[in-house]
Amino acid sequence: MDRPDLQGRKAILEVHARPVPLAPDVDLLQVARRTPGMAGADLANIVNEAALSGARRGASRVSQADFFDALDRVQLGLRRRGVIMTAAERRRVAYHEAGHALVALAFPDADPVERVSIVARTIGALGMTVQVPRDDRRIFTEGELTTRITVILGGRAAEELSLREISTGAHDDLGKATGMLREMVTRLGMSRKLGLPTLTRTVGSPLLGTTTEERLCSEDTAREIDEEVRERLTELYDAARRILDRRRGALESVAEALLARETLSGEEVAQLAAAAPARELAPSAA
Amino acid sequence: MDRPDLQGRKAILEVHARPVPLAPDVDLLQVARRTPGMAGADLANIVNEAALSGARRGASRVSQADFFDALDRVQLGLRRRGVIMTAAERRRVAYHEAGHALVALAFPDADPVERVSIVARTIGALGMTVQVPRDDRRIFTEGELTTRITVILGGRAAEELSLREISTGAHDDLGKATGMLREMVTRLGMSRKLGLPTLTRTVGSPLLGTTTEERLCSEDTAREIDEEVRERLTELYDAARRILDRRRGALESVAEALLARETLSGEEVAQLAAAAPARELAPSAA
Amino acid sequence: MDRPDLQGRKAILEVHARPVPLAPDVDLLQVARRTPGMAGADLANIVNEAALSGARRGASRVSQADFFDALDRVQLGLRRRGVIMTAAERRRVAYHEAGHALVALAFPDADPVERVSIVARTIGALGMTVQVPRDDRRIFTEGELTTRITVILGGRAAEELSLREISTGAHDDLGKATGMLREMVTRLGMSRKLGLPTLTRTVGSPLLGTTTEERLCSEDTAREIDEEVRERLTELYDAARRILDRRRGALESVAEALLARETLSGEEVAQLAAAAPARELAPSAA
Amino acid sequence: MDRPDLQGRKAILEVHARPVPLAPDVDLLQVARRTPGMAGADLANIVNEAALSGARRGASRVSQADFFDALDRVQLGLRRRGVIMTAAERRRVAYHEAGHALVALAFPDADPVERVSIVARTIGALGMTVQVPRDDRRIFTEGELTTRITVILGGRAAEELSLREISTGAHDDLGKATGMLREMVTRLGMSRKLGLPTLTRTVGSPLLGTTTEERLCSEDTAREIDEEVRERLTELYDAARRILDRRRGALESVAEALLARETLSGEEVAQLAAAAPARELAPSAA
Amino acid sequence: MDRPDLQGRKAILEVHARPVPLAPDVDLLQVARRTPGMAGADLANIVNEAALSGARRGASRVSQADFFDALDRVQLGLRRRGVIMTAAERRRVAYHEAGHALVALAFPDADPVERVSIVARTIGALGMTVQVPRDDRRIFTEGELTTRITVILGGRAAEELSLREISTGAHDDLGKATGMLREMVTRLGMSRKLGLPTLTRTVGSPLLGTTTEERLCSEDTAREIDEEVRERLTELYDAARRILDRRRGALESVAEALLARETLSGEEVAQLAAAAPARELAPSAA
Amino acid sequence: MDRPDLQGRKAILEVHARPVPLAPDVDLLQVARRTPGMAGADLANIVNEAALSGARRGASRVSQADFFDALDRVQLGLRRRGVIMTAAERRRVAYHEAGHALVALAFPDADPVERVSIVARTIGALGMTVQVPRDDRRIFTEGELTTRITVILGGRAAEELSLREISTGAHDDLGKATGMLREMVTRLGMSRKLGLPTLTRTVGSPLLGTTTEERLCSEDTAREIDEEVRERLTELYDAARRILDRRRGALESVAEALLARETLSGEEVAQLAAAAPARELAPSAA
Repeated sequence: MDRPDLQGRKAILEVHARPVPLAPDVDLLQVARRTPGMAGADLANIVNEAALSGARRGASRVSQADFFDALDRVQLGLRRRGVIMTAAERRRVAYHEAGHALVALAFPDADPVERVSIVARTIGALGMTVQVPRDDRRIFTEGELTTRITVILGGRAAEELSLREISTGAHDDLGKATGMLREMVTRLGMSRKLGLPTLTRTVGSPLLGTTTEERLCSEDTAREIDEEVRERLTELYDAARRILDRRRGALESVAEALLARETLSGEEVAQLAAAAPARELAPSAA
Repeated sequence: MDRPDLQGRKAILEVHARPVPLAPDVDLLQVARRTPGMAGADLANIVNEAALSGARRGASRVSQADFFDALDRVQLGLRRRGVIMTAAERRRVAYHEAGHALVALAFPDADPVERVSIVARTIGALGMTVQVPRDDRRIFTEGELTTRITVILGGRAAEELSLREISTGAHDDLGKATGMLREMVTRLGMSRKLGLPTLTRTVGSPLLGTTTEERLCSEDTAREIDEEVRERLTELYDAARRILDRRRGALESVAEALLARETLSGEEVAQLAAAAPARELAPSAA
Repeated sequence: MDRPDLQGRKAILEVHARPVPLAPDVDLLQVARRTPGMAGADLANIVNEAALSGARRGASRVSQADFFDALDRVQLGLRRRGVIMTAAERRRVAYHEAGHALVALAFPDADPVERVSIVARTIGALGMTVQVPRDDRRIFTEGELTTRITVILGGRAAEELSLREISTGAHDDLGKATGMLREMVTRLGMSRKLGLPTLTRTVGSPLLGTTTEERLCSEDTAREIDEEVRERLTELYDAARRILDRRRGALESVAEALLARETLSGEEVAQLAAAAPARELAPSAA
Repeated sequence: MDRPDLQGRKAILEVHARPVPLAPDVDLLQVARRTPGMAGADLANIVNEAALSGARRGASRVSQADFFDALDRVQLGLRRRGVIMTAAERRRVAYHEAGHALVALAFPDADPVERVSIVARTIGALGMTVQVPRDDRRIFTEGELTTRITVILGGRAAEELSLREISTGAHDDLGKATGMLREMVTRLGMSRKLGLPTLTRTVGSPLLGTTTEERLCSEDTAREIDEEVRERLTELYDAARRILDRRRGALESVAEALLARETLSGEEVAQLAAAAPARELAPSAA
Repeated sequence: MDRPDLQGRKAILEVHARPVPLAPDVDLLQVARRTPGMAGADLANIVNEAALSGARRGASRVSQADFFDALDRVQLGLRRRGVIMTAAERRRVAYHEAGHALVALAFPDADPVERVSIVARTIGALGMTVQVPRDDRRIFTEGELTTRITVILGGRAAEELSLREISTGAHDDLGKATGMLREMVTRLGMSRKLGLPTLTRTVGSPLLGTTTEERLCSEDTAREIDEEVRERLTELYDAARRILDRRRGALESVAEALLARETLSGEEVAQLAAAAPARELAPSAA
Repeated sequence: MDRPDLQGRKAILEVHARPVPLAPDVDLLQVARRTPGMAGADLANIVNEAALSGARRGASRVSQADFFDALDRVQLGLRRRGVIMTAAERRRVAYHEAGHALVALAFPDADPVERVSIVARTIGALGMTVQVPRDDRRIFTEGELTTRITVILGGRAAEELSLREISTGAHDDLGKATGMLREMVTRLGMSRKLGLPTLTRTVGSPLLGTTTEERLCSEDTAREIDEEVRERLTELYDAARRILDRRRGALESVAEALLARETLSGEEVAQLAAAAPARELAPSAA
């Protein structure tokens, strides 16, 4: 279920508040700001609860305080159902997505960024960076694959650089990046050390979702695969971090914009990045 | 089945004793003290047995001695059914839970302790430390995860420090802590040595409870995983032990309070800890 | 099926012999001594066979020789069915059980010995040492576990010390002791070298009896588990042997008493042990 | 579904354009050039869309610009369905197939090339080099097998030499070449180091497509298999690359001819290769 | 199906020959000598064929030559069905069984030899040495187990010593001996190097005959098990060979007697062994 | 389906040609020579096609040229169905089978060669060397087993010696030879290094064809098995090659005779071998 963003929520609140007599201090934008993650039904619920709260007070108009009362009650329930992010989570997700987007901007052969958002859409996905494939290619060069992996790692790199601590949020990104590198090394002949042989294959039913990677090689070769995957993942992660380190200003301004506006178009990201001062340093060694 | 605590048991005994003529020496609080782990039905049974004992003596009133007679008979049966803890077990569980609670108190980012109890609630769980999550977050930083593991290890650390011998009681804690550290090292990119690759995955049906961890790496890497998990578990255990070593006085007073009152609120634990003298030593080396 | 001991068998023989005219030389206690392992039906059978033997002789009274004749016939059949132990087996079982009992006596924290017996009760169990749990505890300290293992190993140690040769009889004891030590090392955090991690888990259905230990670690760690289990099993076995070596006299007298009386109470074992001379040697080095 | 080539598409366009009044600037060959990958129905669609575009303009005749308009609309839809290759993909596939064909030409014992094509025929196969078996032999010499593998590797070698970057396009070729070399080393007694023993066997049902290679040897031998397969695959790949490096001119002209004409007969390939200047260099060392 | 021995076959031939007029040169014992492995029906067949052969000759009496004719025809058929041993096989089986018997004689604690035979009884068992268990014991000492293994290995040792070449005939003996030694080392605490731990267990259904040995230890320990089993099997085999080397004369005479008489009682073996000269050499070094 | 040899085919052609008017130049033996691998129906087909060809020419008699025309048409179809060997394949199969036969001749204890043939009988078997077991033995000495393996390897050795290149044709021979050597080393106590223990066993259902070899030993021992099997297979292969190297003349003449006559009796092979000059060289070092 897609959830509305800030402007969307304000509009929904206005619709539901129309029949309700409001005190002059009511500011629905302010209410909207405090309802990230809420769906239309939740917002309708807040207007109702505010009206009830006013009625309980015996007041003829619903005040901003009634709305805050209502907010507390409704949010408590939603928080219990695990739908709403904490402030720390929103901040982390904002930097994480900004990281993906800025690394993508740095590579001419990356798929262009269409949209970045920190509005949770589905259980499990707290933010998203949408890239539009440049074309419908079915063949990818080694360079295009490593660009993709670097973009994927940009989220975690941004968390580490800006928040100084890593989190469980990069879990899926790491799984995806590892899978792509293993495929490059074991099936696409793109290993630096292991040469051309096909070393794994996929078995099981993709239909039933029970596929596994089957090893077609010895323990010793498996160890070399591990080493190369680890080494190259580190290299690509370092590349992502260096890119973001040189673009610290851009990272801050894109993340802050996401926190304020929740969703940015690819163009908006590019403009914010262009406006931010680039670091005038020699490329960092790390 | 939840079992009543000391005050609860006294109240239940009073209810059942109402129709029974009691001798002046009867002190139901004393009886309650000797019935930890008993459910309402067991307590009703004790009052009955005491009444029968008095009748057998031909006495017009039921004396405290009748109650003790009844206690012996009823407890023997319960002990046979494995419901009641021995005195040594209660003592050990008290220190174990006090350990969890005091380590949690030591970390600002730990979930606050709500309640600590040594009343056995279900088969297998002889005590419990209840922490209320600060919020419903779904993303955890590396620091938050290590805090959780340290709190988990606090129980065993308290047993070792105060009772000088470890026991089978930390069995589940060790399983949980090991699982969290393995996940950090193999799936969350939080390894110190193994870099970012995803090294295991969960397979099987969580519905049927038949999940296993599937290794996606070579024996050699598996060895490195083992080493890092072992090393970091040792570090976090040592951290828990150092915390408790500096708070020996608090550990004693919380454990003693648990033995006396069976259940403490988080606030009571904090007050006891604050009242206890902190050790004025330089941080211990172990 | 429980089988009667010496006194039990004499009583049964007397019951069955009541209607039979016995010669003055008949000594049913002597007959009972030669019927270890026999059930009531077997003893009735012996009286019948003896009566038939006397009838065949044309004698008016059944003599002791008739009983011995009957014994031979009946025992041959039973021996064929594998119910009766050979003299060597009885001797070995007596020393084995005496070993368990005396090692248990040596540890204050061992569960008290209630009964020791060399009367085979079920197929496969040729003797037994019954210990009564001191209480119904569910938590065990490391010391209590090692005591249990040492008591288990006492049987084999006694065989080796007194009969100078080991046998297949300790088969089940070794399996039990190994299993306990593996659990201590891999799941209870009681390893000396491997730290706290949980290294194995039980999978499969206990209901169907198809559980296996699943390894959660690398080959290298598995090797270290093997080494530690081997080393500690050796240490505990040596401890059991040292205890029995210092109590040679007790071992002899308890074993001899078992051969004579078949069943001893824990108290009788303790008295025999107390009466036996302790070796006045410095503790042996082995 | 077979798709028409350049001449085929021009003919189809002419058929569909017959009832349509065309402006003098219309050049259907030019339209055909811009429709690689399209089936008959797609081409009919283009003529329709062009007629509609002209009608929308209120023109009496359909101009070339109307056709280009139609092309854009139709191609966008097809591109979304993933049927059409990008320009980069066509170029890569042309060099890849030219590589297969020229390496095959270089070996007298290779099966003769009948046809080379970059018309995608089925999902997944973006190009093809068709070789006609010289005869229906069932026995192959070691030399014939290595020739086959070298031809298979020629596609990737051409990509690397001419496009300077490798791609995912050689995925299937690598699987096939690895499989053949493993079979030579482990089942055909053609290993250089491992001697004659049969080291693997195929298990499972070929009917259900569930066959796997089962190892009949130790880890150590498996490592040696890996090494030999890797080493020889590298050698054969280098051989393919050396052949193509000496025939750079031929590679360029065959690839360009494929891009222009989409399909070449084996004879045409041979003529283009003969016409191209051979490099007058000493054999390269790589 | 039990097959008759020499005397048995002679008796059967006589029964079937009663109604047949025999020439004076007929010697049925000689015929019996040439029919090892034949069952009653085969012998009846020979008498019939001989009678037919005589009839074909038009003779009034059946001669020895007719019997030899019949023998050839019948044996050809039986040989085709694989029922009859070749002369080389009989010789080898004779030495093999003599080896078992003489090694058993050399150990006071071996089960006494009741019978030795080279009459094939069932498919697969070409000879047998029957030992009667001294008693129905269920506990075996380490010495008793090694004696059993040495007796089992005596068959192959005899083949090697006397026939100078080993054969496939010891196949089952080796499997049995290996299994016993593995059990001693891995489950009976009788290892010299691996200590007391239980290292394997039997899994699977004995009912369905699908049991396997499951390893409860690391690869490293498995290697040590292999080494100890190999070493001790070699020692016990050498012991068997030394015993037989010192009793070469006995081996020859028992084997020859088996070839002549096919079945020997344990007593006969003992007498032959006693009558044979013992080698007056110092114990051989091998 | 058995296919006729040269003489058989000539006879079949004559039968079918009887009703056909033949020109004087027709030589059916020559036709038969060009139809190896054809069944009766194919030969009938050739006569029909030749008659049709003559009719098409308007000739009154069918000429040899008509037969050659017919041959081309029929063979093309058969070649497409993969029934006919190419000339190179026939040559290779002839040397391969000659190799088996000559190595068998060199060993007195090999089963005598009855027939050698290069007429393909079933799909997959392009030639055969039939040996008649000397007798129906069930016990084999080590020497007899190694002789068998050497004979099996003789086919590949002949290919290598005479055709200078090995092929896929020895695939099955290598599987069989490896299997026999593994059994000698792991189950028959015939290893040079690994002693007597049984190291593998066969599991699975022979009925369902799903048997596998199960390893009962450690990786380390598995490596030693691999090494010994490899080493001994090399030795036996070298032995086969040395035998054939000394009998080059015989190899040539037997292979040539097979190409000419397709099938040879064991006696014919022996005569050809005897007539060929033996090399007067010192035994070759290889």
